Amino acid sequence: MRATVMYRAGDVRIETVPDARIIEPTDAVVAVSRACICGSDLWPYRGMEEIPDSGRRMGHEAIGFVEAVGNDVRTMKAGDLVIMPFAYSDGSCTFCHEGLQTSCVQGGFFGIAGMNGAQAEALRVPLADGTLFVLAVGQDDALMPSLLTLSDVMGTGHHAAVTAKVGPGKKVAIVGDGAVGLCGVIAAKRLGAEQIIILGRHADRIALAKEFGATNIVSERGDEAVERVRQLTGGYGVHSVLECVGLEQSMLTAISIARPGGAVGRVGVPQDETMPGSQPAFYNNITVGGGPAPVRAYIQELLPDILEGRIEPGKVFDRVVGLDDVPDGYRAMDQRESIKVMVEP
Amino acid sequence: MRATVMYRAGDVRIETVPDARIIEPTDAVVAVSRACICGSDLWPYRGMEEIPDSGRRMGHEAIGFVEAVGNDVRTMKAGDLVIMPFAYSDGSCTFCHEGLQTSCVQGGFFGIAGMNGAQAEALRVPLADGTLFVLAVGQDDALMPSLLTLSDVMGTGHHAAVTAKVGPGKKVAIVGDGAVGLCGVIAAKRLGAEQIIILGRHADRIALAKEFGATNIVSERGDEAVERVRQLTGGYGVHSVLECVGLEQSMLTAISIARPGGAVGRVGVPQDETMPGSQPAFYNNITVGGGPAPVRAYIQELLPDILEGRIEPGKVFDRVVGLDDVPDGYRAMDQRESIKVMVEP
Repeated sequence: MRATVMYRAGDVRIETVPDARIIEPTDAVVAVSRACICGSDLWPYRGMEEIPDSGRRMGHEAIGFVEAVGNDVRTMKAGDLVIMPFAYSDGSCTFCHEGLQTSCVQGGFFGIAGMNGAQAEALRVPLADGTLFVLAVGQDDALMPSLLTLSDVMGTGHHAAVTAKVGPGKKVAIVGDGAVGLCGVIAAKRLGAEQIIILGRHADRIALAKEFGATNIVSERGDEAVERVRQLTGGYGVHSVLECVGLEQSMLTAISIARPGGAVGRVGVPQDETMPGSQPAFYNNITVGGGPAPVRAYIQELLPDILEGRIEPGKVFDRVVGLDDVPDGYRAMDQRESIKVMVEP
Repeated sequence: MRATVMYRAGDVRIETVPDARIIEPTDAVVAVSRACICGSDLWPYRGMEEIPDSGRRMGHEAIGFVEAVGNDVRTMKAGDLVIMPFAYSDGSCTFCHEGLQTSCVQGGFFGIAGMNGAQAEALRVPLADGTLFVLAVGQDDALMPSLLTLSDVMGTGHHAAVTAKVGPGKKVAIVGDGAVGLCGVIAAKRLGAEQIIILGRHADRIALAKEFGATNIVSERGDEAVERVRQLTGGYGVHSVLECVGLEQSMLTAISIARPGGAVGRVGVPQDETMPGSQPAFYNNITVGGGPAPVRAYIQELLPDILEGRIEPGKVFDRVVGLDDVPDGYRAMDQRESIKVMVEP
């Protein structure tokens, strides 16, 4: 079968690899119907050191059909349509029970550390019962892109909103206009935010943010952006900030635009060991939460809104490629030609 | 009148200063019955640069009697016994209404930036109606030390516990065995914690921690402390960490002993601009909250437990000095001879 392999920064190849197969009795093999390229895939695309022999198998978001299951898999069978969250999890440990599947004691992540990836014709999914979400619906092309976002970006935007304590009547700001930030706009609106300010400057993304419910656009950066958000919020800043980038500057901006007593929910993978703004966050009693989103826990909550058409996060996909064009998809996202690329293997 | 003035690190003097008097019509003058030296006073005691002429008036915790009120003060009169929180606040702004008086738009802090301090015979209290809490009880010597802690340390320990999301059945750790950490033990027990681990190594403080409800003592430091807390908590760490120090190492320890999905409530004044542990906090979805405690908001909740004898935070005072011996009180706290010094001017 064919799969996406990254060997070093900028070097993404489509290669023939051994077919995905059942190894553990709790495994399933999923034939990938749709996958995608994630903003977090751009970090290794920009900076990964060479892994000369094996490379790194890429991709952690997928929707597809179960092709085979191990002997201990109970809740699905070949032919079922499933959403594959970016983390695998046993569904039974204390953290899974608490709804934090990304900290599952037996769990892990696709597309890293030797685990196979979803930008491929198929992949092996460990702990299938705990990991995969079986859809009761048949394949509906119109809904597939939005359902695919439940494997990561929509659940991640929702996690940012939840950890930023978005609720009815709240003033909200979103730092980052990538696919996750845009899904954060959807999540903030869905949770009842009164004002939704997005910090971004790319026309296509801003247009989509407005369509999703953003009430204000701030295209300034740094101190000017902080000043502008304060102007828009009666001088105090917002109750909730969704940090969807992960850089030092974006985190500092996030803390600086939160009002006293506010909260920052961060889902941008932090690129630094330390967090800036420790003192202003402290003096203003700003809470910083977030992390890898337990998207498995959120599917049940978000799914009805997709099935009934109330939210359409699938609109973040502005390019569709076959497997052969995945390397060009990386390039397009890296150069911001594309918001998010969907892969149809 | 006499008051405590710090001129530079290590240089604390008792001096005769102009009598406290009403300046604004919203002021009150309070004759200090009891004040104290705060762990946070040790930061300038150790590192303050010289302020040659005026020095810095010290002290921000007091209980005392109203001596005079301005024309606009409505809720108290001369002779009332009051608790003075370490921050003054108008009681009417949006943040005061939200219970975050330490971010009051008209507010500020005693003992800094030209504002007078409580380690004195008397002091001027701005915004008296919003700031001072009038006690319905008469002066009762046995209760005075515990009531005094409502001006800072007990409310601050409570804030650490609240922002660390302590609740019934939770496993809790407290980093720091100073007076605030010890009040954090009281707060954690009061909020229903199942296990209360204190990280500390001073025999007198540990004994008090046990009396207050600590179930485990961890005297190791750094990585060894982290390992020990994990051993005590089934391998995962605690739900809630109260960070009561403010140093880089203590914050890193706090993040390292929190279980995935846990929370750190920090009340130790951070001494660094950046916060360590940004990545482990992210990957484990650990929330970091806290800041200057809105102790004014907590008095109503904590007071009945003191009046009815269920909690005795006043036990953190292990030394009582007159005003003349305040400089020696600083020395004793700095050298850890004393947990917390009470001042009877």
